[in-house]
Amino acid sequence: MAFTRASTALRPALRAAALRTPAAHRTLCASAQRMAAASLFPGEPSSPSVKTEIPGPASKKHTEDLHKVFDTRSLNMLTDYKKSSGNYIADADGNILLDVYAQIASIPLGYNNPALAKVAQTPEMVNAIINRPALGNFPPEDWAEILRTGILKVAPQGLDQVFTAMAGSDANETAYKAAFMWRRQQERGGPDVEFTEEETTSAMNNQAPGASQLSILSFRTGFHGRLFGSLSTTRSKPIHKLDIPAFDWPQATFPQLKYPLEEHAAENAAAEQASLDEVEHLIKTYHLPPAAVIIEPIQSEGGDNHASPAFFRGLREITKRHNVLLIVDEVQTGVGATGKFWAHEHWDLPTPPDMVTFSKKAQTAGYYFGDPALRPNKPYRQFNTWMGDPARAILFRAIVDEIDRLGLVEHTARVGDYLFSRLERLADKYPGQFANLRGKGQGTFIAFDNPRRDEFLKKAKAIGVNIGGSGESAVRLRPMLIFQEHHADILLEALEKIAKSW
Amino acid sequence: MAFTRASTALRPALRAAALRTPAAHRTLCASAQRMAAASLFPGEPSSPSVKTEIPGPASKKHTEDLHKVFDTRSLNMLTDYKKSSGNYIADADGNILLDVYAQIASIPLGYNNPALAKVAQTPEMVNAIINRPALGNFPPEDWAEILRTGILKVAPQGLDQVFTAMAGSDANETAYKAAFMWRRQQERGGPDVEFTEEETTSAMNNQAPGASQLSILSFRTGFHGRLFGSLSTTRSKPIHKLDIPAFDWPQATFPQLKYPLEEHAAENAAAEQASLDEVEHLIKTYHLPPAAVIIEPIQSEGGDNHASPAFFRGLREITKRHNVLLIVDEVQTGVGATGKFWAHEHWDLPTPPDMVTFSKKAQTAGYYFGDPALRPNKPYRQFNTWMGDPARAILFRAIVDEIDRLGLVEHTARVGDYLFSRLERLADKYPGQFANLRGKGQGTFIAFDNPRRDEFLKKAKAIGVNIGGSGESAVRLRPMLIFQEHHADILLEALEKIAKSW
Repeated sequence: MAFTRASTALRPALRAAALRTPAAHRTLCASAQRMAAASLFPGEPSSPSVKTEIPGPASKKHTEDLHKVFDTRSLNMLTDYKKSSGNYIADADGNILLDVYAQIASIPLGYNNPALAKVAQTPEMVNAIINRPALGNFPPEDWAEILRTGILKVAPQGLDQVFTAMAGSDANETAYKAAFMWRRQQERGGPDVEFTEEETTSAMNNQAPGASQLSILSFRTGFHGRLFGSLSTTRSKPIHKLDIPAFDWPQATFPQLKYPLEEHAAENAAAEQASLDEVEHLIKTYHLPPAAVIIEPIQSEGGDNHASPAFFRGLREITKRHNVLLIVDEVQTGVGATGKFWAHEHWDLPTPPDMVTFSKKAQTAGYYFGDPALRPNKPYRQFNTWMGDPARAILFRAIVDEIDRLGLVEHTARVGDYLFSRLERLADKYPGQFANLRGKGQGTFIAFDNPRRDEFLKKAKAIGVNIGGSGESAVRLRPMLIFQEHHADILLEALEKIAKSW
Repeated sequence: MAFTRASTALRPALRAAALRTPAAHRTLCASAQRMAAASLFPGEPSSPSVKTEIPGPASKKHTEDLHKVFDTRSLNMLTDYKKSSGNYIADADGNILLDVYAQIASIPLGYNNPALAKVAQTPEMVNAIINRPALGNFPPEDWAEILRTGILKVAPQGLDQVFTAMAGSDANETAYKAAFMWRRQQERGGPDVEFTEEETTSAMNNQAPGASQLSILSFRTGFHGRLFGSLSTTRSKPIHKLDIPAFDWPQATFPQLKYPLEEHAAENAAAEQASLDEVEHLIKTYHLPPAAVIIEPIQSEGGDNHASPAFFRGLREITKRHNVLLIVDEVQTGVGATGKFWAHEHWDLPTPPDMVTFSKKAQTAGYYFGDPALRPNKPYRQFNTWMGDPARAILFRAIVDEIDRLGLVEHTARVGDYLFSRLERLADKYPGQFANLRGKGQGTFIAFDNPRRDEFLKKAKAIGVNIGGSGESAVRLRPMLIFQEHHADILLEALEKIAKSW
């Protein structure tokens, strides 16, 4: 593709420019313009520009005001979206930062992407915004077409149907509901067996047998959302869970791999086997039998914890053998960031997952499935008023088109390799600052641990890079799909600057 | 207001026209155009137009195709939103129906409303669509302004803060979470008391004391959503709940009023007192103490069950006395349909509800609150990636502006009175067909029972009116806020035609 050749050709020049300081960078107008020309995002800034401390006076003032009506204690940056562009996020004080956090990994194609802006102004989008349908009752006549050219065009292999949702939490929870209904239907003897009087009566009282005594098995340090069902499977941090009633569902240990992987192969394989053994043991013995196992390809909120493809193949084999569904939560890993459209494509599974949930970069949400038995046996069992949002489905279609047009999945695989190899050098150069570097071959879905992580992120912001953390000590990189080598160079320069300062 | 005078002046002519048959109606082009001129929605059709059986051949064909990828068993009408206008919904076969169901009560101002279309095309909206923020971390610099001129402009009296959400279910669930954190904080001794090691450890295992042993008290036949926490408080129909694990939370009987109210005053008062006694008993004795009581002003999905203002005042008094929060679920009743902006304004409460949840006609969602203690004591306790959607908040602001400009709350109160009085006449004329007519003085939020309800709704559709049902036998009317007397006449004519045919 044209853009690839151009950016490859320009890369050495860009890298050379990026190795200079940000201040020098700003003066390089001519070269910056050349860079922009090679950019996947014409017109974006060529470098960060930090004018005030962050938060600056305007941000502080507006935040104080906002706080009166909307809790701002988790506020990271008061953002000026009008002035944000491509990989760069602007704040209320006019500071412009390279953004490798991207709204908690949910901006795919850059701020104010012109292709998306165009789609947002079409009559089709306006129609979808102002005429929001109750999709289960009154779908638009072209809903099949919208799905096939968008959400379903990128459906994971083997999964050709979708239940649409609003965000990651309800995508997961509706998948859980499908799993419970599927399992109980089997136990009941098939789709044609009617519910008993005892079931319908007890269900209304939240009691068994109508309310099933089943569970969803999840993994320690996993994250699947924060509503009541999803939160019961989330095991990332106490602050997410404290005081909230939870279902007594089982959890297995997620293998804790040691890095570098090649030096700990046997140990890591043993950790993975122990985890699989625990899963199997829980499936066989847990007092509330699991209808499904849910797992992230890379535990994201929990600290970027990886496991090997062999582990996931083992999990598929065990769940299959015990008639337990496998739900892969691709809310954060999906839509290209790992160098595959879906992260589970890295695993080479013999049979597909039973359900794959998605949201974030897709801007819409839902779960994919293939087996018709995952449709409940009666209408209105899996139902709610909106059941998703066609406006966001149309936006995702446009995102998919841009990903295709620009080859952004392969692009991200390549840029990720570039970034990872240079991070390895930093890890060698600054021992302990880039600990447990992980995400090799996983696109730009890269993380490392830093002993003073929160301070690290703060310093990064002060020199113009917006980065997120996860887990206890992980610095997680979640750039957009339009993140290029020259952005990587700016990021690397900033990371080295911080490491050097300690 | 100008529009009110015009429509009042024209009303006798409109009513006369409407009393003719639909066929005659269609020929009345000139008078129809005059009607349209007096309409709150210029250009909408003047009457329904049914050309094929419903579903017609095109709808059937497209539905069959859609069913391959998206479950269509709950499909009501395959809708052509491009051709829908104002109070009229069009299907894929070109049939045009008067719509008094309005996407399960969630379209406020008519299909293809020009004022909303204008807002949907503004740079502000385009920006919000393509740059979706993680609101808790990166709110737009004008988020306070968007809230104050929209969502908070119509905040219920006494509640001046909001936590935004995506839809009714997560609005309720986040309200529940706020309630649980509030209650545990009290038990713990205040916001400054740290969590114990035992709490943080047990929370990660979904066990007490970290996972609280508290509950939400709801009412029989109530509906509050279909995710795991909200579904545990939903008690409308077994089909909503079967096979889904549920929390062992308490339910009280919702008073079952007898109609006409004036003939059963003593009996109804006793039923309400019994319900209040049951609530108090459950609060005092239930093994998982309720942190909050949630109630709909009118139980909507459960069959349009009403209670008196005195009942709700009693509930406020009991919850207050026992230090239990009162959450009013205005997802379906809110935003004008009952002739007040919020239905609970009908109650004349001495102190406001602690939280009021909203969605549907608001197009966005969330919970309002006033007491600062309902903000959890630490950041990230009430948090998720998107926390709502500024695009929909901007749309709601435009909806609020239109409601104000056209005086649609008062308008709906008046049209509701008009409709109700004529329904009373039908109820007298066709005994048993319009049983338990209810919703007097509640705007257009009106319902009645029909012994052959499903057939009734089908017949209505065949003659050009789209109506929804609820509960076992209720025909529920949920017109939009731009529903006028001449629409009521068309509806009444259709209802009488069905009643007469039996």
